Amino acid sequence: MEKFVERTLLYDFYGELLTAHQREIYEDVVLNDYSISEVAAELGISRQGVHDQIRRVDKLLDGYEDKLRLVQKFIRIRDQVDQIRKTVEACDPAGLDEAKRLVAKLSDSILEEL
Amino acid sequence: MEKFVERTLLYDFYGELLTAHQREIYEDVVLNDYSISEVAAELGISRQGVHDQIRRVDKLLDGYEDKLRLVQKFIRIRDQVDQIRKTVEACDPAGLDEAKRLVAKLSDSILEEL
Repeated sequence: MEKFVERTLLYDFYGELLTAHQREIYEDVVLNDYSISEVAAELGISRQGVHDQIRRVDKLLDGYEDKLRLVQKFIRIRDQVDQIRKTVEACDPAGLDEAKRLVAKLSDSILEEL
Repeated sequence: MEKFVERTLLYDFYGELLTAHQREIYEDVVLNDYSISEVAAELGISRQGVHDQIRRVDKLLDGYEDKLRLVQKFIRIRDQVDQIRKTVEACDPAGLDEAKRLVAKLSDSILEEL
């Protein structure tokens, strides 16, 4: 996965577990691409301080993902829901039995994933 | 939701974020129904200590759910996947168009929920 997409997903899933201060810095620098200097000046802290917070947040987000695997699950479930949708959408009457088998299998797989 | 089911679900989703000690006490007392006295004796701590840990863990689990809503999402997604499965399973060729509309709607709804 592309690094920026990965960080955005991790932040989407676990951002609520961070402090407001951590969220502010992380959003500004990592998601909205402000420079470290701009954010440091805006918040009245050192560039090193901004840097340290970013590193700390990356570590926290990775730690949550190691434990809860929400991003991994999200990606797998999204793919399986997409497959269900496409299978049903493309189904004609002659293919209905085959579609039923596939949807049952994918549904089970999603329920196990949850 | 029944209290025991709710606690089990909360523990399933957020147990990994607890310490090993918290997990041990919570599993013994809340999930496996050992008495406070038994667990206190086994771990060599006071009954009050066991009690406090249980209360603290309940608070932590509720706090994680307030922030991440994984249990709520899980229940809604599970219901929607069940609906998809049943819709497709019961579908006959004459009902295929209607089933396609419903599955598309439910799929969108799950993807938004994720």
